[in-house]
Amino acid sequence: MFSYPLIRDTLSSVSVITLTTDFGTQDWFVGTMKGVIAGIAPHAKVIDLTHDLPAADMRGGAFALAASCRFFPKGTVHVVVVDPGVGSGRKAIAVRTASGVFVGPDNGVLSWALAKEKVTAIRALENGAYLLEPVSKTFHGRDVFAPAAAHLSRGVPIHRFGPALNDYARLEWPKPRKQRAGIEGEVLYIDRFGNAITNIEGRLLRGFRRASCEVHAGRRWSCPAGTFYQEVAKGAPVALIGSSGLVEISVNGGSAEKVLALRTGCRVTLGTV
Amino acid sequence: MFSYPLIRDTLSSVSVITLTTDFGTQDWFVGTMKGVIAGIAPHAKVIDLTHDLPAADMRGGAFALAASCRFFPKGTVHVVVVDPGVGSGRKAIAVRTASGVFVGPDNGVLSWALAKEKVTAIRALENGAYLLEPVSKTFHGRDVFAPAAAHLSRGVPIHRFGPALNDYARLEWPKPRKQRAGIEGEVLYIDRFGNAITNIEGRLLRGFRRASCEVHAGRRWSCPAGTFYQEVAKGAPVALIGSSGLVEISVNGGSAEKVLALRTGCRVTLGTV
Amino acid sequence: MFSYPLIRDTLSSVSVITLTTDFGTQDWFVGTMKGVIAGIAPHAKVIDLTHDLPAADMRGGAFALAASCRFFPKGTVHVVVVDPGVGSGRKAIAVRTASGVFVGPDNGVLSWALAKEKVTAIRALENGAYLLEPVSKTFHGRDVFAPAAAHLSRGVPIHRFGPALNDYARLEWPKPRKQRAGIEGEVLYIDRFGNAITNIEGRLLRGFRRASCEVHAGRRWSCPAGTFYQEVAKGAPVALIGSSGLVEISVNGGSAEKVLALRTGCRVTLGTV
Repeated sequence: MFSYPLIRDTLSSVSVITLTTDFGTQDWFVGTMKGVIAGIAPHAKVIDLTHDLPAADMRGGAFALAASCRFFPKGTVHVVVVDPGVGSGRKAIAVRTASGVFVGPDNGVLSWALAKEKVTAIRALENGAYLLEPVSKTFHGRDVFAPAAAHLSRGVPIHRFGPALNDYARLEWPKPRKQRAGIEGEVLYIDRFGNAITNIEGRLLRGFRRASCEVHAGRRWSCPAGTFYQEVAKGAPVALIGSSGLVEISVNGGSAEKVLALRTGCRVTLGTV
Repeated sequence: MFSYPLIRDTLSSVSVITLTTDFGTQDWFVGTMKGVIAGIAPHAKVIDLTHDLPAADMRGGAFALAASCRFFPKGTVHVVVVDPGVGSGRKAIAVRTASGVFVGPDNGVLSWALAKEKVTAIRALENGAYLLEPVSKTFHGRDVFAPAAAHLSRGVPIHRFGPALNDYARLEWPKPRKQRAGIEGEVLYIDRFGNAITNIEGRLLRGFRRASCEVHAGRRWSCPAGTFYQEVAKGAPVALIGSSGLVEISVNGGSAEKVLALRTGCRVTLGTV
Repeated sequence: MFSYPLIRDTLSSVSVITLTTDFGTQDWFVGTMKGVIAGIAPHAKVIDLTHDLPAADMRGGAFALAASCRFFPKGTVHVVVVDPGVGSGRKAIAVRTASGVFVGPDNGVLSWALAKEKVTAIRALENGAYLLEPVSKTFHGRDVFAPAAAHLSRGVPIHRFGPALNDYARLEWPKPRKQRAGIEGEVLYIDRFGNAITNIEGRLLRGFRRASCEVHAGRRWSCPAGTFYQEVAKGAPVALIGSSGLVEISVNGGSAEKVLALRTGCRVTLGTV
């Protein structure tokens, strides 16, 4: 998975809460969560990771958090609300690790970030003292996750929030496969610039000279392995180690998504020719 | 109107200012308002409700504020700038209530939030000492409303901002009607997920078993009354009490706007069959 | 260029950092920059100008900063990351002026804001002590500009960041031309509302009665000079002094971009008939 070193080890004097949701920014949902937080933890600094995930895109949310959480100060409370099962039986959880606390529905959306963490406690969020009651059936971001994050950021011990759990739900992280001729992975995430981020650890790129992408119906693109966009001609593709520490396919001055017709799930193979 | 209980009664040690506009986020307009606020009230916490209202959508702005203001700490200054009449004769106002201060153009955009508030003062924003002069003709967000909000959040008494007014402009809130067979309301707002929020108070849903939506040309949809999305099959519609405390029509795992072709203004009738 | 008076001369007790990028908000890039800043300068107030610039739109970024920087408190650190050359040889710079510090790639994106400033130091950002190492090849927003801004906002002297430079790169600012019959400029920026902002200083509008816009293939529109939107009929165009202090072409209650088919680069001529 993400191979980038953990670089942040400071304990900030200000508590930080990050928010990652599929709420969009056209309605008042995110602002309302911040209002709830401001009432409980007025000095917390709330930072948006993104709210523009496609509705119910748990892999996108899991990826966004995993790609960024190590850049936040120690003790940060990370909240992810991608929650198609809101109001049903799925649990709301908080997971404490050596570097912070991760809060969200127990549907796997936290799991890619947690894979690199030393987990020290997992609790269900059930104590009414730390919920906004009456809890609605459709907006746990406001009524469950925002108040939990705010109380956690103020130092309320995690064991007060509810019963201990043995484990948390996981999303499968597709593992790259060794092939005779190289390594085969897939596109996991496409960013705003149209860069196609794969599941292949960046350090593996060094042993190879080219990346080959199968886009559809057997149609393939191939591009050289490089280190930055402008190394290839304008409009040409290149495989490089992206800022997430994973191999990504990019087009200099353009969008690999558009130019190469790449989609999440497309197979990408590193090889020597 | 909004029937949800007022749940926030804390007096925060940090002053909070909310911003709701139709400025979008692609230009520098919102950032500039925050720059002006930072120069006057450096310790105020500014929270965006939304800036993605359709241009001049006063009902959308009124709804966003009314749906969220009760979740903010006591004393919060709420600013709404949906202001097609900027530069013309419409007044700029501040309205103090028992729970905070509401600032914006006097075109009704504050009125749905104020309907639930105990109003204690209404003032026109005319005192040049609290404006950014020279005041432009086209950007009162920056030159009138941001400085007013910042000074109010620092505790400048409202009577200093300008002359007292007797009343503020109102947008009509369409009232649901009792019918022989049930209650007839309409869709007031459609959120990012395609949920269609009506003008019918949520508690009224309890007496009924179904909701019937007239979408166009007499075409109707009918769906059961429920309590959360996953109560119905994937792709099926359900009427429930939304997080705003109003009846909303939703589709489990989908968009009621798309699946049912619902629009604002569509009639929704609660009934027993 | 921007003729609006500098109106902000306060020295805020809180350090402010502004961010302007083409990163969009759908990924975690901006949030990650804020995480890095929070770890280094936990008390800094970070304000987004915009992150929705078209990818690699240096003129848009330059315009956004120039139109808004004078509304921020003295000492503000302004960061612009529109950086198509990331990872190549272009320098990363910090420019100190009498009113703040401007940080970004040395590709001209800072130059329109700096044109009005009294520059007191220009430094390359090369000191590893103020970078996030290992510095990626593709995300200097996180690894170079965010840490530099955070350290600058904490008061680290600019000379510590790297070697002095004699000058910074500039984007050409197209100068309006005097014609026999008036002044000819062009559309530089179109905002969210479809207002077309030109390169003509607003005070020049006073000597003229009409603006004539050449949209394409010799097709022209002409509109009166006015002072606010509602001065003309609904749907009608008007030339006025926009909030940036420049002449802009607007349509009352509509979009000049759509109604008049205006684009950046369209010629606009002020005249007396």
